[in-house]
Amino acid sequence: MKPLIKVTGVPRSSLADWGEFAFIEALKKRLPPLSGGLRLGPGDDASWWLPDDAGGILTTADMLVAGVHFDLHYTTAASLGYKALAVNLSDLAAMGGKSGATAYLSLALPPTLEKRWLESFLDGFLGLAGTQRVQLAGGDTVRGRELVIAVTLNGQPAGCSPICRQGAMVGDDLYLSGWLGDSYLGLKLLQGRLAETAGREREAAYLRERHLCPQPRVSLGEKLGASGVVSAMLDVSDGLVADLGHLLVAAGGLGAQLEAERLPLSPAAGFFLHSGLVDYPRLLSGGEDYELLFTAPPAQRQAVAAASAAAGTAVTRIGRITAAAGVVFCHQGLKTALSGFGGYDHFRA
Amino acid sequence: MKPLIKVTGVPRSSLADWGEFAFIEALKKRLPPLSGGLRLGPGDDASWWLPDDAGGILTTADMLVAGVHFDLHYTTAASLGYKALAVNLSDLAAMGGKSGATAYLSLALPPTLEKRWLESFLDGFLGLAGTQRVQLAGGDTVRGRELVIAVTLNGQPAGCSPICRQGAMVGDDLYLSGWLGDSYLGLKLLQGRLAETAGREREAAYLRERHLCPQPRVSLGEKLGASGVVSAMLDVSDGLVADLGHLLVAAGGLGAQLEAERLPLSPAAGFFLHSGLVDYPRLLSGGEDYELLFTAPPAQRQAVAAASAAAGTAVTRIGRITAAAGVVFCHQGLKTALSGFGGYDHFRA
Repeated sequence: MKPLIKVTGVPRSSLADWGEFAFIEALKKRLPPLSGGLRLGPGDDASWWLPDDAGGILTTADMLVAGVHFDLHYTTAASLGYKALAVNLSDLAAMGGKSGATAYLSLALPPTLEKRWLESFLDGFLGLAGTQRVQLAGGDTVRGRELVIAVTLNGQPAGCSPICRQGAMVGDDLYLSGWLGDSYLGLKLLQGRLAETAGREREAAYLRERHLCPQPRVSLGEKLGASGVVSAMLDVSDGLVADLGHLLVAAGGLGAQLEAERLPLSPAAGFFLHSGLVDYPRLLSGGEDYELLFTAPPAQRQAVAAASAAAGTAVTRIGRITAAAGVVFCHQGLKTALSGFGGYDHFRA
Repeated sequence: MKPLIKVTGVPRSSLADWGEFAFIEALKKRLPPLSGGLRLGPGDDASWWLPDDAGGILTTADMLVAGVHFDLHYTTAASLGYKALAVNLSDLAAMGGKSGATAYLSLALPPTLEKRWLESFLDGFLGLAGTQRVQLAGGDTVRGRELVIAVTLNGQPAGCSPICRQGAMVGDDLYLSGWLGDSYLGLKLLQGRLAETAGREREAAYLRERHLCPQPRVSLGEKLGASGVVSAMLDVSDGLVADLGHLLVAAGGLGAQLEAERLPLSPAAGFFLHSGLVDYPRLLSGGEDYELLFTAPPAQRQAVAAASAAAGTAVTRIGRITAAAGVVFCHQGLKTALSGFGGYDHFRA
């Protein structure tokens, strides 16, 4: 669409000096040759992709806004480009998607944005795309007062159908990939709300990195999708208990029992927990882990372990699904009913 | 993604009072039952769509920003919802896409936005979706300081392959659907930069409507796509000459001759032209017509006419493709070389 107003008075070396078409040309020059059924990439009215016949199309869309989803004071351009793609890849992984997706990147950009910043943003986005067999196939670039990033991914299920968030059954095991709470701790360190401990700089650096550059569990999602043994799955973005709540509601109102001793904590998170600098409720409600939370019947423990080994991603059995609604947290012999961990509402105060 | 900051002090009856989850629930309640191969709609980590085996997937993405692409002083919520989908449908039509697409709507919304406004926006979006066999299958709703709308559409080609913007040949006829310049005139009337003429209120109302609610040429695009006779096509969003330039560059640097007497003007635009209130250069460079501009060999005139008749959309032969680069405008026996009609650059002053 043709915009209504024009911009004046912006510095050189900025996007305004570069221009929209030069930016798009520079972007297109960085793309590898089309492959994997993508017949037409950016530059026409639409892309054209010939997916495998079987399985259908999985599509996920996410929008990130400066000052809401990220703070440009401590988020580098490269980590933001990486994360904009990573959070969408995490959604595809959570459906049991297979590797080989097409991405659509729409950007609202302030004209004062530095060229260098944009190049670093693309470094992050295209770097992750390259390692995860994602092709940037289209999008839009427009002017905005604030930075807004909208990414859509088209992918395909690894199995004959995707893994939905509904489908958990009473007695199913409950699993979590990777590590719990690293991203929450990293965010608090970045915000200065949690102080670094002398001698623990390496742990702090690890946690900040886990917040800024979460690892989407693409390979694990693919192996679990192909295994056919997972009854329900989603990725943990709102916090473990909030997302577990979504899974339990989707299952028709079931419950779950979580074992504190089983929760997978990284050495860094373990240090903060055992030092009393953070408690379980915060780790259980902190967002943006981008780990996979899923259920499977106890008879399938070997198949889950095989998928974990094939993907090279740790998977921990953290509890089980119960008939009684609600989440019960078992810690040192005590059982606590968890509540008040509802997902963040974007608009409510 | 979980946002970092919270909002306080917003009025009742606004989005902040309604809440994100209530908004999404209200949206989901308005959606018709899944159909046409869509197996999983909004609410999971991704949608799941089983397209027809043949033809592959066409994907287009557009982003609209308040104050850049539309002015909320004269754009109603319903017309904006309509237009956000219409401009994407126009892109699919320009590829020769067939009816039956899935849509992904991502919105950055100021929390102070009225519920009523959002409901009207959905009226416009879902109203057009209903008439054009589009299913809203996913998206994202986040908070932003300014209103940003990102839409992605997945569709399929009507023929065995889509119609690209490259492919025009020397000697091809050049065609335009519908009417030229209505949207430009409507915008100028809305902006108060063009005065209404006494006794011509009906024409002015028609032109404003053509700007606010452009008619995507979905059926014509489908018939042309299925016909297999079109050599190149795109939709006119940047202005006729700018978009013709894109088509000629994509053809490897060909030219075109335009016949002024053949340009299709609505009675309302004809009145403004013949009254001297607007001239040809403005009609040729005004944006947002969302008409289809396409080429076909002269031997295929009957097939083009048949597609036009089947779609119920007027198509006019407005010129032809030439070996000499550049666009020549023929008017009353005079030939003028057109230049300086390059597309609008979002970032340059």
